[in-house]
Amino acid sequence: MMKIITLLTDFGLKDPYTAIMKGVILSINPNVTIVDITHEVDPQDIRGGAFIVEEYYRYFPDDTIHLCVVDPTVGSARRPIIVVKGNHLFVGPDNGIFTLLYKSGYEAYMIEGPEFMRREISSTFHGRDIFAPAAAHLSTGFHPSAFGGVIHDAVRFADIFPLIEGDRLAGEVVRFDRFGNAITNIHTDTFERFIQGRSFTISINDLSFTTIHKSYYEGDYTCLIGSSGYLEFGYYKGSFAQEKGLRKGDPVYISPGPEG
Amino acid sequence: MMKIITLLTDFGLKDPYTAIMKGVILSINPNVTIVDITHEVDPQDIRGGAFIVEEYYRYFPDDTIHLCVVDPTVGSARRPIIVVKGNHLFVGPDNGIFTLLYKSGYEAYMIEGPEFMRREISSTFHGRDIFAPAAAHLSTGFHPSAFGGVIHDAVRFADIFPLIEGDRLAGEVVRFDRFGNAITNIHTDTFERFIQGRSFTISINDLSFTTIHKSYYEGDYTCLIGSSGYLEFGYYKGSFAQEKGLRKGDPVYISPGPEG
Amino acid sequence: MMKIITLLTDFGLKDPYTAIMKGVILSINPNVTIVDITHEVDPQDIRGGAFIVEEYYRYFPDDTIHLCVVDPTVGSARRPIIVVKGNHLFVGPDNGIFTLLYKSGYEAYMIEGPEFMRREISSTFHGRDIFAPAAAHLSTGFHPSAFGGVIHDAVRFADIFPLIEGDRLAGEVVRFDRFGNAITNIHTDTFERFIQGRSFTISINDLSFTTIHKSYYEGDYTCLIGSSGYLEFGYYKGSFAQEKGLRKGDPVYISPGPEG
Repeated sequence: MMKIITLLTDFGLKDPYTAIMKGVILSINPNVTIVDITHEVDPQDIRGGAFIVEEYYRYFPDDTIHLCVVDPTVGSARRPIIVVKGNHLFVGPDNGIFTLLYKSGYEAYMIEGPEFMRREISSTFHGRDIFAPAAAHLSTGFHPSAFGGVIHDAVRFADIFPLIEGDRLAGEVVRFDRFGNAITNIHTDTFERFIQGRSFTISINDLSFTTIHKSYYEGDYTCLIGSSGYLEFGYYKGSFAQEKGLRKGDPVYISPGPEG
Repeated sequence: MMKIITLLTDFGLKDPYTAIMKGVILSINPNVTIVDITHEVDPQDIRGGAFIVEEYYRYFPDDTIHLCVVDPTVGSARRPIIVVKGNHLFVGPDNGIFTLLYKSGYEAYMIEGPEFMRREISSTFHGRDIFAPAAAHLSTGFHPSAFGGVIHDAVRFADIFPLIEGDRLAGEVVRFDRFGNAITNIHTDTFERFIQGRSFTISINDLSFTTIHKSYYEGDYTCLIGSSGYLEFGYYKGSFAQEKGLRKGDPVYISPGPEG
Repeated sequence: MMKIITLLTDFGLKDPYTAIMKGVILSINPNVTIVDITHEVDPQDIRGGAFIVEEYYRYFPDDTIHLCVVDPTVGSARRPIIVVKGNHLFVGPDNGIFTLLYKSGYEAYMIEGPEFMRREISSTFHGRDIFAPAAAHLSTGFHPSAFGGVIHDAVRFADIFPLIEGDRLAGEVVRFDRFGNAITNIHTDTFERFIQGRSFTISINDLSFTTIHKSYYEGDYTCLIGSSGYLEFGYYKGSFAQEKGLRKGDPVYISPGPEG
């Protein structure tokens, strides 16, 4: 059975950069199945990428290697790392992209051994020179600890989760999907724990919802638990983001009671 | 030899949704070759998708499984189905997306057996919970009839084909390709049967053509039989759609005689 | 080990054209690994495509077959060809797309044998009817010389390289990447040979640089040697192209001395 390597980047689809990473991988291990996750993470949006990483990986088989390169400070001192989470392996920069994996048990290792890198390391394309080779070598059976020392201080976003402010829960919009639906950082579990069966009001922009819909066609504006478990907002006739002039980071509040 | 599963959706490339479907497939059957057709069907454009389905499938080997998810009413009562057409299998919602396969012989089955679905079925992502698992299970050798009962009332678009109006044939623009070429629902066979060797005038917007070109560089504006057999219009210097302000559904007329 | 076929086109991702090429390939040889390079070459931009071809191919394993279809004059008399460069094979139109491979030793053959093509050859889609079948047949072990006669007059862009004008080196912007970085036709080797250790001034638009940066975050505007070895310009806060109103073909000058 062939090992799977998935690829998530903000490189877009216009340039040959992800293809070059695939060439590097296949030159080291031709017997892998490569699966693109997306290359349309907003440029340099590590935060948005972090949510996508958490969203997709669990659907892949055990032993899948996830190569995640959103790396605005490539060439600086930020470390290249391998994260082990359950039976999944992650390769990428230590810049917060793996924050959501750190909520529970994990291990992390530096990628230090030059024998796992390309001979010349550019300062602009570690995806090609460090991360793709590491993923390929992992797929041939090397243990993550072979690549470098264990670390306990992996970089994470401290403010990525919703907060309780007074009697309300304050979250934010973390990204927009293709249809313009606004996806928040409020997970259904967080929501349920906070509301505990009480009535509630969900506010975003000038809208309030006192019920959670089951699907996008239940109203013009809908508020539902998206397929990944996070609260999201949609607009049946078009883009919620555009219709409401929303931006990433815009606040979302959950208050107990029908009055908000 | 590995089975092939193709993927056609309107999910775009920004979100991890198609990748999640691939993860689900590979978790059930790691020995498949997955081929993306397009994920850029216009959002919720079942009609446009129906033409693409007919266009590409015949180029794939026998026994290919085509997973087609343009599903604006996910969560409603529309049925998930498997369509058998010649030696090809199709999996998707019963909402008209397979209309053009129904022109001649086919079989269709419902996907009913929970053993072929994910344990929890969301109301927003049947691509992940129902369609991808069905395609994967088909690829391991299950017969379509194992998934559910046969149906004879598959949903189709009644008005998807050109009509004879008086002495002219009336068709429409069904989609635009990347270059802005306008692709119609008038197949070369329909055209030939209608014209029967007579001279003709083809009208779209303020343009008329009395000849069919062989390639896009024969004139500023060209009218030709596209690679899929449908009449289409192009503009060598840019986008025909933009230059002429066209929209999907705009009429195209074929009249006998040089005067139109 | 499965042969690899890479795909580079200007077909975009909206239409099923590249998928149809993949179907044709897999129908001839189901045991190939197909890797997308990009399908977002600017429409009909053979020049820009030529630089991408040179950029990515070397990262793939020996015996990879590269299918490159940017083909604005499909249907005209331009020849379909196979180019052999080192241990790589290239298939595509003879219109200059392979210009940068011709800098040093190569062989080129016409694709003439109808047994290597689809039975019917359209005038609009040689990617499907000629190029994809040729690549697939190459992957089953046919030698390039089996496809047709050798040629020594492959079409190339004469003006694709930088020129010395008086005491300065004159190059140009050849394409923009996803981030809006401006990539030039001035390779680091050309630059070094011209400057020979002297101080220098690099001018583009209203900007001058007297140093080459190591990474994009070293300044608002940066001038660096991109990952492919070519001089490029970036803007840390957004798109260099947009910020400076640049277009493909805009000049870039290298002058000796700090005064430019």
